[in-house]
Amino acid sequence: MSIALIQGAGRGLGLEFARVLSLRPNVQVIATCRQPEKSTGLQELSGVDVQALDVNQEGQIHKLSEYVQGKYGKVDFLLNSSGMLHPSGRGETRLADVDLTGIQETFMVNTFAPLMMAKHFTPVLKKGSGSFGAKSADGKQTHSAVMASLSARVGSIGDNRLGGWYSYRMSKTALNMANRNLAVEFGRGKNQIICLALHPGTVDTDISRPYHKNVPKDQLFSVEHSVKQLLDLVDNATLKDSGRYMDYSGTDIPF
Amino acid sequence: MSIALIQGAGRGLGLEFARVLSLRPNVQVIATCRQPEKSTGLQELSGVDVQALDVNQEGQIHKLSEYVQGKYGKVDFLLNSSGMLHPSGRGETRLADVDLTGIQETFMVNTFAPLMMAKHFTPVLKKGSGSFGAKSADGKQTHSAVMASLSARVGSIGDNRLGGWYSYRMSKTALNMANRNLAVEFGRGKNQIICLALHPGTVDTDISRPYHKNVPKDQLFSVEHSVKQLLDLVDNATLKDSGRYMDYSGTDIPF
Repeated sequence: MSIALIQGAGRGLGLEFARVLSLRPNVQVIATCRQPEKSTGLQELSGVDVQALDVNQEGQIHKLSEYVQGKYGKVDFLLNSSGMLHPSGRGETRLADVDLTGIQETFMVNTFAPLMMAKHFTPVLKKGSGSFGAKSADGKQTHSAVMASLSARVGSIGDNRLGGWYSYRMSKTALNMANRNLAVEFGRGKNQIICLALHPGTVDTDISRPYHKNVPKDQLFSVEHSVKQLLDLVDNATLKDSGRYMDYSGTDIPF
Repeated sequence: MSIALIQGAGRGLGLEFARVLSLRPNVQVIATCRQPEKSTGLQELSGVDVQALDVNQEGQIHKLSEYVQGKYGKVDFLLNSSGMLHPSGRGETRLADVDLTGIQETFMVNTFAPLMMAKHFTPVLKKGSGSFGAKSADGKQTHSAVMASLSARVGSIGDNRLGGWYSYRMSKTALNMANRNLAVEFGRGKNQIICLALHPGTVDTDISRPYHKNVPKDQLFSVEHSVKQLLDLVDNATLKDSGRYMDYSGTDIPF
C-alpha cells in the first residue's frame, strides 16, 4: 500500500489531490485540515483517513507524525497544500498596507509550516517505498518518497515586474529556498527524498477568487485540470528534479 | 546637509558605515542600535546622532521615523545593517536543528525589520535630495534617496549547493524579494528611491566568526575593505540599479 499525505486538504487543490489519489488502487490517503468537520468535500470521500491538523501548531504536526509512524510506518508522497494570500484575504497593494502581524501569519502558514512538516515527517518519508515518482533512466538512483509544496509564480524574484503582495510573494520565495535546501539535505545518503516546489497556475479556488476578473478565461484553470497536471509532474519526478521550482507544465520558473 | 541613517550600527559593518560616513563633509549620520550605551565603537564617533532602536519593535521604528522627520525632515541614504545567523549564533546544519522560534526570530531581524524600516521611512526617503547615488547618464532620471539592505550570497536559491543554514538562507532570500518589490513600488512616480540588496563578502565580524576557519585568508575581508566597496556601489547607484542583488564588486548574484 502506498501512503499519500495531503496537508491542507479541506478545500481547493488539496481536496482535489486527496480525491484523485483516493481513487487510485493501493493508495491510502491521509488528509489533514484545520477543521475536518467543516469540510463537506473531505467528508464525501471514502476510504480517506481524515485528521485534524492546525499547521500553526508545531506540536500538532509532531503528534500527527507519530500517529502516521505508528499506523502506517511510512509516507510515500507528502503534499504541502495549505496557504494564504494574507490574513485579510487580499494581497497588499502597497507597502503602506503591510503590517507585521499579517506578514508573520502568512509566513507561518506558507513557509514555516511546510518546513515543520518536512522536519517531523523526515523519518516516515525516509521509510517510503518509492511508489510515487518515477524510476531514474539508469535505474541506479532510487528514492524513498516525494515531497511537494504548492508554491506560486509570484514567488519568483527574477520574474517580479509588478510588485505588491509583499507577504505572499516573500513567503513563497522563502518557501522556494526551503525546497532547495531540503533537496540538498534529502539528496544525500540512502533513502533520498525528491523535493518539488510547484506553481499550480491561476486556479479557480478561494485563494485567488478576488483576482479572477483580471485573468483571461483560458488562463484560469479548473481545480481538476491543475491537479491533473501537477500529479503528472509528481508521478514523473526523479531525483534529478529535486529542488526544482516549476509550473504546472513542468517548465522551470526563474528563482 | 545629507542625512544618512544607519540601522544596526552598534558594531561590525553598520558601525564602519557610520564611521566612514561621519567623516564626510556635509553628511549627518543617524546611527541606531539596540543598546547604544553598550557600543563603545559608536560612542567614539563624533557628530553622530545616536538613537536607540530595537528593530523587533515596530512602534520604535515608527517613533524614530517621526523624530527624524521632525529634526531633519528627510533621509538621503538608509542602510539596513542588523542581522543574525540564528539566535543560537550558529546556522542550522540539518533540518533537525531547525526550530520554529529560531526561524521566526531570524526572519524578524533579517527580513521583516528592513521592510518595516522601509515602510515607516518612506515619507522621509521621498523627501531626500538625491545626494547619495549617482546621476543617471542622461540626467533625466532622478532619485530622492538610496536604501540598501545587507543581504548575503547564501540567500541565493540558484547558487545554493550546500544547503543548511535554513533560517539565515531563507530570511535573506525573502529579503531579496522584499528589495525587488520595494524597487518596483519606489520606482514609480516622483521622488523615486533606489533599492539595493548587497552581499558584503565574508567579513571579519562577529556574525561569521564561528566559520572563519573554513574561509581562505584572502577571501576574508576586513570590515574597512568591505564597507569601502559597498559604499562605492551606493555612491555609483542609479535608478537602473534599483532592485539588484549584487556582491561587493557590483556583480549580480542569481536570485
